[in-house]
Amino acid sequence: MELLQEIAATFAAIKANTPLVHHLTNYVTANDSANITLACGASPVMAADPGEATDMVAKAGALVLNIGTLNAAAVDTMIATGRRAGDLGVPIILDPVGAGATPARTDAAGRIVRETSPAVIRGNAAEIKTVAGLSAAIRGVDSAADEPGGEAVAAGLARRLGCVVALTGRTDIVAGAGRVCRIANGHPWLARVTGTGCMATSLIGCCLGAGASPYAAAVTGLVVMGVAGELAHRSLGPEDGIGTFRVKLFDAVFNLTPELLVSHAKISETRED
Amino acid sequence: MELLQEIAATFAAIKANTPLVHHLTNYVTANDSANITLACGASPVMAADPGEATDMVAKAGALVLNIGTLNAAAVDTMIATGRRAGDLGVPIILDPVGAGATPARTDAAGRIVRETSPAVIRGNAAEIKTVAGLSAAIRGVDSAADEPGGEAVAAGLARRLGCVVALTGRTDIVAGAGRVCRIANGHPWLARVTGTGCMATSLIGCCLGAGASPYAAAVTGLVVMGVAGELAHRSLGPEDGIGTFRVKLFDAVFNLTPELLVSHAKISETRED
Amino acid sequence: MELLQEIAATFAAIKANTPLVHHLTNYVTANDSANITLACGASPVMAADPGEATDMVAKAGALVLNIGTLNAAAVDTMIATGRRAGDLGVPIILDPVGAGATPARTDAAGRIVRETSPAVIRGNAAEIKTVAGLSAAIRGVDSAADEPGGEAVAAGLARRLGCVVALTGRTDIVAGAGRVCRIANGHPWLARVTGTGCMATSLIGCCLGAGASPYAAAVTGLVVMGVAGELAHRSLGPEDGIGTFRVKLFDAVFNLTPELLVSHAKISETRED
Repeated sequence: MELLQEIAATFAAIKANTPLVHHLTNYVTANDSANITLACGASPVMAADPGEATDMVAKAGALVLNIGTLNAAAVDTMIATGRRAGDLGVPIILDPVGAGATPARTDAAGRIVRETSPAVIRGNAAEIKTVAGLSAAIRGVDSAADEPGGEAVAAGLARRLGCVVALTGRTDIVAGAGRVCRIANGHPWLARVTGTGCMATSLIGCCLGAGASPYAAAVTGLVVMGVAGELAHRSLGPEDGIGTFRVKLFDAVFNLTPELLVSHAKISETRED
Repeated sequence: MELLQEIAATFAAIKANTPLVHHLTNYVTANDSANITLACGASPVMAADPGEATDMVAKAGALVLNIGTLNAAAVDTMIATGRRAGDLGVPIILDPVGAGATPARTDAAGRIVRETSPAVIRGNAAEIKTVAGLSAAIRGVDSAADEPGGEAVAAGLARRLGCVVALTGRTDIVAGAGRVCRIANGHPWLARVTGTGCMATSLIGCCLGAGASPYAAAVTGLVVMGVAGELAHRSLGPEDGIGTFRVKLFDAVFNLTPELLVSHAKISETRED
Repeated sequence: MELLQEIAATFAAIKANTPLVHHLTNYVTANDSANITLACGASPVMAADPGEATDMVAKAGALVLNIGTLNAAAVDTMIATGRRAGDLGVPIILDPVGAGATPARTDAAGRIVRETSPAVIRGNAAEIKTVAGLSAAIRGVDSAADEPGGEAVAAGLARRLGCVVALTGRTDIVAGAGRVCRIANGHPWLARVTGTGCMATSLIGCCLGAGASPYAAAVTGLVVMGVAGELAHRSLGPEDGIGTFRVKLFDAVFNLTPELLVSHAKISETRED
């Protein structure tokens, strides 16, 4: 199937299947993750207690692990839930928020990567570099700028771990087995709203839950977020700012159709032959 | 007093008394619960630490117990705070979010019901069935659809526990001592925004805090949420989606008057004589 | 430098320097604090785990300590992180949310004041009176009304602790060494949206992180919040309420310029000579 068709089919499958997407995520953007999941047609659940996380994942179509506000106990629960997901065949997406910013985050991301098998890892350039074992310029949880060489890093990490790596920045990169996709959608204001990275991760989780391959899921999720950013910004009046932009993001995802998505997608792909 | 008049009087009493509504709730929708409480004219507080929850409830007009993101320690605090509320005569509303989806949630809801005395229990059909000890079709925290026989289940549970049961769905049902009210307000998009169930629970808490009877509180809270959903949707433009709808929900509750509420209420009541 | 010029320079410095503002804050309004930080041009991070909070603060330009949903462990982490901030010269702003409402909150605020050295303390009249060791009328986390004598209390506390005290209410008061500034900006609806106090605290944190003096930071942060409230309310249509108002607050902060800020500022200052 051609990639554009696969994007359209993946997005349609979310609406057709309403997958349950289990989130172990942070308290800063949990509400946004839940609403973007609903906006695209899936169903979110956040059940992070060790007493129920492994039960809930058995009902889920995908598992989102996001270390935005981690603690030691939460990382243990993420790993236990991730392992159960692995046993059950529930695909995992990891968002290593702030990996590289503190040793605790770098360690947590590393442990989750080693002890579970994420189908997709999504982060900014500094986070992905950190997960790949390289040094990176990161202060907090925002990436200062695009790091050089992101594409090679993403492809190398994907190859090493046998998973898909989604590196978001001015141009998003999705690297899978022998394929790399560049996505030129998006808008600079997406970096001025908290949680848009987490929302992109949740969207990829929705695609995974709808049955897409990790590669198609990552490309589709990032195209959805990027196109929504463009449409949201286009709809603004001269007095509007990031408050209204953030609201319109949810509107845009909610109103997106497979056709609109494909007509706005700006993707290019390289395949190793 | 006629029910419609009671609704108007309850809503007016919130604005007149500005009750403090203490929430032990989840981190996903806590902000929404706080803002809807403010929108209707009450004052929210979220003080969930065992070191202060029982102190804070002494100042409150009502206590909201919401197990959306429970853990074992939080359930213990809910029960201790609920017992203190009982000693002080502060009415409790329980939202058994996701009861039935995992054993931990079912157990938590059961313990709270047994060890405190909720004035009102509000949930979707699957949650109420679970609290009533019946099996129910639930995946995560969203009810897939209206379960059959909800009215009988709600009335039976209300009778057994001696409390009011509010079962929300396409038609909302409020069952109290010998009375059942059906509320036909609302809009399908309410199910596409996270936290609208929690917000309905908070609104009922505001009504309880304003001194309404549990039955009048439950009916009023659900009519407010339903009418707000209708007004919010009516105010949307063709490009708007759930992002704008969610914002307009708060506007609608904020701008509601007792008169508007009564003129939009679609209720029917059955009484056992 | 004249105070108005200092306000303009402080606000411009945020945009020029993009300071990282580390928040140990509550789960109810963390998203709002993050977005208001981004709106004014700074970068937020919330890393509250004891395993990383002291590492993250080393990268930050300012530290926000907000006890909105405190617990004993979190207070210990706040103190440890505050001490490290002190060692590193990272300025601290304390928001003693709900101090006076429960013994736990009063004690937590007292411990943080004694064991760290906040550059600024921001609270409503009841919270500031409580920190000053006076009795105050407070129920939950909202101040019922302006308490009398706020200016003398703020000035006395500032003198005793050698810090800046920002007391927000109908008129905001900033008291520093031998100077008191009154700020008459704002709008009553700011009290009808949850988290506007927390957001004001975050804005002051952004100013501190941009290198402003504690006094200039407090005045600038409160002028930004007050002017944004005015501009947000002015932009509303007749059907809008606090939902839209809240969205427009972020727009207003995002679109503010140093020139706009100065032209709308309503400040008056008294200096001891």
